[in-house]
Amino acid sequence: MSRQMHLGVFVLGTGNHIAGWRFPGATQSFEDIAVIQQIGRIAEQGKFDLLFLGDNLATDPGMHPSFAAKFEPLTMLSALAATTTHVGLGGTASTSYTEPFNLARQFASLDHLSHGRAAWNAVTTSGDKAAANFGRSHAGHDARYEVAEEFVDVVRGLWDCWDDGAVIRDHATGRYIDASKLKPLNHVGRFFQVKGPLPTSRTPQGNPVIIQAGSSEPGLQLAARTADVVFTVVQDKAEAQAGYQALKSRLPAFGRTADEVAVLPGCMPIVGRTREEALAKLDTLMSFVDVENSRVMLNSRLGIDVSGFPLDARVPEDFPLPDTSHGFAKAMLAKAWREKLTWRDMVNLAGAARGHWVILGTPEEIADILQDWFEDYACDGFNILPAYFPGAFQDFVDLVVPILQDRGLFRRDYTGTTLREHLGLARPPSRLFGG
Amino acid sequence: MSRQMHLGVFVLGTGNHIAGWRFPGATQSFEDIAVIQQIGRIAEQGKFDLLFLGDNLATDPGMHPSFAAKFEPLTMLSALAATTTHVGLGGTASTSYTEPFNLARQFASLDHLSHGRAAWNAVTTSGDKAAANFGRSHAGHDARYEVAEEFVDVVRGLWDCWDDGAVIRDHATGRYIDASKLKPLNHVGRFFQVKGPLPTSRTPQGNPVIIQAGSSEPGLQLAARTADVVFTVVQDKAEAQAGYQALKSRLPAFGRTADEVAVLPGCMPIVGRTREEALAKLDTLMSFVDVENSRVMLNSRLGIDVSGFPLDARVPEDFPLPDTSHGFAKAMLAKAWREKLTWRDMVNLAGAARGHWVILGTPEEIADILQDWFEDYACDGFNILPAYFPGAFQDFVDLVVPILQDRGLFRRDYTGTTLREHLGLARPPSRLFGG
Repeated sequence: MSRQMHLGVFVLGTGNHIAGWRFPGATQSFEDIAVIQQIGRIAEQGKFDLLFLGDNLATDPGMHPSFAAKFEPLTMLSALAATTTHVGLGGTASTSYTEPFNLARQFASLDHLSHGRAAWNAVTTSGDKAAANFGRSHAGHDARYEVAEEFVDVVRGLWDCWDDGAVIRDHATGRYIDASKLKPLNHVGRFFQVKGPLPTSRTPQGNPVIIQAGSSEPGLQLAARTADVVFTVVQDKAEAQAGYQALKSRLPAFGRTADEVAVLPGCMPIVGRTREEALAKLDTLMSFVDVENSRVMLNSRLGIDVSGFPLDARVPEDFPLPDTSHGFAKAMLAKAWREKLTWRDMVNLAGAARGHWVILGTPEEIADILQDWFEDYACDGFNILPAYFPGAFQDFVDLVVPILQDRGLFRRDYTGTTLREHLGLARPPSRLFGG
Repeated sequence: MSRQMHLGVFVLGTGNHIAGWRFPGATQSFEDIAVIQQIGRIAEQGKFDLLFLGDNLATDPGMHPSFAAKFEPLTMLSALAATTTHVGLGGTASTSYTEPFNLARQFASLDHLSHGRAAWNAVTTSGDKAAANFGRSHAGHDARYEVAEEFVDVVRGLWDCWDDGAVIRDHATGRYIDASKLKPLNHVGRFFQVKGPLPTSRTPQGNPVIIQAGSSEPGLQLAARTADVVFTVVQDKAEAQAGYQALKSRLPAFGRTADEVAVLPGCMPIVGRTREEALAKLDTLMSFVDVENSRVMLNSRLGIDVSGFPLDARVPEDFPLPDTSHGFAKAMLAKAWREKLTWRDMVNLAGAARGHWVILGTPEEIADILQDWFEDYACDGFNILPAYFPGAFQDFVDLVVPILQDRGLFRRDYTGTTLREHLGLARPPSRLFGG
């Protein structure tokens, strides 16, 4: 079979568009289990690889409604584990404000609950608002990545402390565990000391899938060494191709091949049965955009406060690239310079898809763009950001997915049951037991 | 209606008896979602208030199989939230090795996912094995409770940062949140500094239910001030009555009344259609007990290493009460002195129900004992520990619960949907907004 696309869906109960909840018929809560169960059903109808949740460790009620009041990822994904059967369940959890033992354990538990569908998006957390919820100031960018490197190693090590086949349940002798198949990790590092093992046996996937989204040099290094899936922020095909190469070219240094990591850019498709219908949908959505909320989102994406900037002034060419939220700032500012955008355009970009790439058209036009990027190695698939739920997601699944299937670019049905199987990734043996 | 009993079920996939998994027909895994879903169905068939999970932050493969390889509580309860509709979902999480912001948020998320059925069993964690997984030595008993007092306050404060009605979703104006109904907690204490609010709106129960199980003086004080449900370890009715009074008498000092806290002793009922059948079941279970595993359990319950003690020697009357695992050690040693038990008896007691109370008989005999304790204010109900699943739990629900219902001691059906409603507890207003 030819190379196959991978598809994820970025879940926010009020939609990915900042005002998606105001679209007629849209769901309006990210604290309602019925909403996420419906999204789970559509994802499996569309044979998606992965359902994904971002996260942040603070609330900002004047920004995106699904950032203000929302489910916590691990609890939400566990609920979905019980009511879905195939789609991968990926969630963000921070290496900055959690204990590696607790995090490794919750994802291992999710992998058991879901029969092998768990994925962890390993992020570092910046921002004073999050830091204040943990009684600290936040560390600088590179320092956060030093912690993250060690954190990811500890988590993977804990997942490897139980070898396969340790749970024997021998009725005759009463032996439940083969203790020779457990080893402590005995990690003693610069930031963490963690003995192990977890009180959880080796999981269906061996290791839950690791997702990363860092685009800085430390982020790329960490992803090249440890990630199975990489989310990217793109606004331009040439840039996406360069980013794709930047990551894939780093893999051999870690003994890895290009097909061991799937690169999935965020993409908000506005699909209409005609181009006019798609344009009308976008117009409706943008008519709901509140400039103040979107400006708060832009501040967060750029890591600076833009509220004093005149909306109709052009983004200056010498505007400095901030340290934080590197991927978003880089892609959005590059687009601003390339397309001579104003700050108002930038605010709208932040409101529409939080700085992610927006495409618009008929199902055929959308499929053409996705095929073009995929076949030209700008990516290995897409993390789809429906503007609102369920309609915009249902449209993509009903109208665009069948075209991708007809063109042989995307599976007609699941051929496996674990996320690793969907992604074409081997189940790794335990490194602690000679794997 | 007369005073009503409350019932919880202590969930361990391999059964509460150390060798329950070897009983014919018993489930054999605590890492299998089908097992816990079946337990959830039986709990709701029996109109139970609460389904409960203990926890420990380390594995000991030579002890209880469900302690060795198991689900993590918050992920498991979230999965059950999606496949149950009424039973309360209570889980243990430690105040010693988590961040209050993360813990408050996960339980708030569970309360939303379950439409108001979340309960947190707030514990302190002792033991070198757990400490080594977090790179520390464990704190002493009283020091752990000082942290716990502050931790619980932070968690409850975070649950109160959003007032009811803050999520307005006004389509016309686009206002999603009424920001006047959010306040930061701004907690600055001895152990924690936490600003808040959570990124989660006020939950269906206002505050998820708080469970505690400490029986030491600091434990009783914390429970009297903050707990809605208290689990106890009992082996004797007079002792249970004294413990019941000890807790209830402390409530007025905190402005609380006796009906605001439900005291539920752990109880393993071995039910037979005849007394002979019940005895045969216990014999079968005890025939599976491995002395070495049970001795490791006894060590853990007493907080000392008993492996050098001769099994057939009597437990000395002057045996010192250890500092850790206070409730278990106290109840088990008191029983040993009262009934002149040997160390072998103690090992069997640890293997049978981990030091909890075991009762045996016909359905009527079991119901008589439960009614007697309940009506004589030794408790407000029971936390039932089925020896194995599903059979021992199904037997209790099919054979004993109907008798309790016929006697007017227990609900015939749920009259509410939240755990607070099952427990007869008011939904508290936010303390930060004048509640």
